[in-house]
Amino acid sequence: MRLLVKDMIKEVGNAAEVEVCGWVHRIRELGGITFVILRDRSGLLQLVCSDEAAGDRDGPCTAHGESPSGTGPLTLESVIRARGIPAANEKAPGGVELRVRSLEIISRAEGDLPYQVNGDSSKVGLEALLDNRALSLRNPKIRAIFKIQAAIIEAFSAYLRSQDFTEIKTSKLVGGGTEGGAELFEVEYFDRKVYLAQSPQIYKQIMVASGLERVFEVAPAYRAEKHDTPRHLNEYVSLDVEMGFIESELDLIELEKGLLSYIFAELERKNRAELDLWNAAVPDAASVAGAPVIPYEEAVKLANAEAAKARGGGGRIFDINPEAERLLCEWALREKGTDLVFVNRFPRRYRPFYAYPWASGTSVEAAGEGAVFTMSFDALFRGLEITTGGRRQHDYQALLEALPKFGLKEEDIAGYRVFKYGCPPHGGFAIGCERLTQKILGLANVKEASLFPRDRKRVSP
Amino acid sequence: MRLLVKDMIKEVGNAAEVEVCGWVHRIRELGGITFVILRDRSGLLQLVCSDEAAGDRDGPCTAHGESPSGTGPLTLESVIRARGIPAANEKAPGGVELRVRSLEIISRAEGDLPYQVNGDSSKVGLEALLDNRALSLRNPKIRAIFKIQAAIIEAFSAYLRSQDFTEIKTSKLVGGGTEGGAELFEVEYFDRKVYLAQSPQIYKQIMVASGLERVFEVAPAYRAEKHDTPRHLNEYVSLDVEMGFIESELDLIELEKGLLSYIFAELERKNRAELDLWNAAVPDAASVAGAPVIPYEEAVKLANAEAAKARGGGGRIFDINPEAERLLCEWALREKGTDLVFVNRFPRRYRPFYAYPWASGTSVEAAGEGAVFTMSFDALFRGLEITTGGRRQHDYQALLEALPKFGLKEEDIAGYRVFKYGCPPHGGFAIGCERLTQKILGLANVKEASLFPRDRKRVSP
Repeated sequence: MRLLVKDMIKEVGNAAEVEVCGWVHRIRELGGITFVILRDRSGLLQLVCSDEAAGDRDGPCTAHGESPSGTGPLTLESVIRARGIPAANEKAPGGVELRVRSLEIISRAEGDLPYQVNGDSSKVGLEALLDNRALSLRNPKIRAIFKIQAAIIEAFSAYLRSQDFTEIKTSKLVGGGTEGGAELFEVEYFDRKVYLAQSPQIYKQIMVASGLERVFEVAPAYRAEKHDTPRHLNEYVSLDVEMGFIESELDLIELEKGLLSYIFAELERKNRAELDLWNAAVPDAASVAGAPVIPYEEAVKLANAEAAKARGGGGRIFDINPEAERLLCEWALREKGTDLVFVNRFPRRYRPFYAYPWASGTSVEAAGEGAVFTMSFDALFRGLEITTGGRRQHDYQALLEALPKFGLKEEDIAGYRVFKYGCPPHGGFAIGCERLTQKILGLANVKEASLFPRDRKRVSP
Repeated sequence: MRLLVKDMIKEVGNAAEVEVCGWVHRIRELGGITFVILRDRSGLLQLVCSDEAAGDRDGPCTAHGESPSGTGPLTLESVIRARGIPAANEKAPGGVELRVRSLEIISRAEGDLPYQVNGDSSKVGLEALLDNRALSLRNPKIRAIFKIQAAIIEAFSAYLRSQDFTEIKTSKLVGGGTEGGAELFEVEYFDRKVYLAQSPQIYKQIMVASGLERVFEVAPAYRAEKHDTPRHLNEYVSLDVEMGFIESELDLIELEKGLLSYIFAELERKNRAELDLWNAAVPDAASVAGAPVIPYEEAVKLANAEAAKARGGGGRIFDINPEAERLLCEWALREKGTDLVFVNRFPRRYRPFYAYPWASGTSVEAAGEGAVFTMSFDALFRGLEITTGGRRQHDYQALLEALPKFGLKEEDIAGYRVFKYGCPPHGGFAIGCERLTQKILGLANVKEASLFPRDRKRVSP
């Protein structure tokens, strides 16, 4: 019966033989004794292989395996099964070691390992890390990224369910795109062409209008963008949210604050070990709650003022570009003690046709098609935009009136026709899962936060 | 402050005005009084609109809305806000009704509703149901399918997490397919071609070998199959599982039994209302635990014997085809009192190159490449295959030796090269989420269990 490494400490003092299985993380010979560090999903364990520990048996660390590939000397990354007696050892990882009585190679690793799994991953370049993805993921620090990501997805889903949201799974194959045709991947679908969905936008809106009212989806999204930057992926995991019966984007910002607070608290509670590997801290609830909400025009002014302070001059920032994102976050951390900033009321020209208009000094409903601004927002976290969202136009006539401004025709938005038959005021947002992971852990490139990232050059493994 | 319909009953006897929002499900005029059934995400509520209830206000059911489209008479599917006083009424849904004092049309539905939302959905043909998907989903019985599906995904994930599995998200864009090139959808990926993944097979195996050991994924999978049957979708949600350190497929069958038991128990506990709409029952834990495991050759014989009983003759079933799936399930229900049957030890010719060989009378390891059978299995549930799985070949040399039988070369399985560097014995399975949903509720066609199904003809909405 196999025991996990993390449970080994409980067996110290017990004279019974126990069994562990895992990968050979490290091998060290010292005075006729072989020390093997074994790695399983729960941690690292020191195995001590000596004639003395093995008693009258064969030398335990020149074991024979169960299959032809199991014979021969022990190699790094081989999968082994070891049996022995646990003993306390303060210097060993976890304070315990296993005095090995027998060792079996289940799957012997060839000696020409193309990537050093037990090395310092911070000294490996991104290309080497990704070219050897199947091996680099074995490094405990690299693997920790994806334990964190799994925890983010779990907490995201749990929080939204607690708020009466229903999980949906929608098609990623769509007849056309309404948010920029040039950024769509084309799919040969039998005798026609379809596209990979850039987001579940129309579907989550339909599902609000279906009466579910509150929905979320965790699914891949695709952008055929040609740029290769530390913030872009061509395929990413989109954490999507949409809800009915809201007044404005401020309701959504409140929801996202609650959601992020919960995610951070869950990581702190359950993933301290993985956070520690990256020296990472998560924001506390008070700092998330205190995140400022800055209207777009003010945010641009603020970013310019910050730029002027930093380098003299200023006035060169005309949009919430990556530099502005970084400057606004630096300002918020310094002045408000928070890692999070919301920018709202983006101009219509920067938002899709379905963004709900907003105008100063008018009621929500009176803003109308002439409005310059929208009830939309971005969330910036530690210098990076992690969310775009906003209230959507739910009135079909108003949608139609907006189309010419965006070069669209009624047939381009056929999916929205259901809004003719009753649709509540609604809105939503999407969090880029890899970007959130990246910024929680302080990764230099968002590709590090994708198990098998896709970019212009990379489509394998 | 909006109140949900399900919470209305608690307000009876309270003289304070309350507010509800939702869709107009039904309108009935009776003796100068308008009865409106309002539908929100939590249920149905009767609104009583009369001059008496409205007091000295305008007649409440000829309300004015907040936007131009809000004016005019009340129509089915309009989204409204009503305020009034709750009162007990045994004949009303939920035992409560709202005596309306004011009513506002938030979003007026046009009168030419192309689909009758409040009708009997069982009398609507599949094409009409799917052509009008955005509206048919508003029917509470249709929507219940997707509350059940959300609960399946939640329970699937929760159970596996409780067994120390980690959720992964892998790429759906792959360089090539190794399980039948003809069934792949081609994607234009910048200046090259890639394919939509048929399954996360290679990735979940890599993730077991990465040291996570136990992983699961909930994600879309794609099959470019041309047939249009009640059991096929071209895009479906695959519930994937993979685990290391197993002995045989029997470990996986045990895991799947525990998993399905948990899913069924959770549905029973939390989704009784949705199950009732479909007159659906879920299997109990004892019947799942008692599901027989029948080796392929015996299963084919048994299916023939059952066919002979049913129609005389028999001997015409040469594989576990849809007829055999149905007959085996009928047999299991009659003889073992269970809805679930496992068939294992499929012949190699029916399984992919990575299936682990099995041979009678030999040890697991000795079966070798000459073996006729594999450590693989299917799960059949209520007459339909819902799962394929099995132990995989973890020895890279053995994989290479198997390739010629399958018309493959080493470069076709480049992703498996990591198995040269230590891979534990492992295996896994995938459950078709829509098929499981279909069979739990007794839906005639699997497309009914997909929010926005994709088939040869259908790529919208």
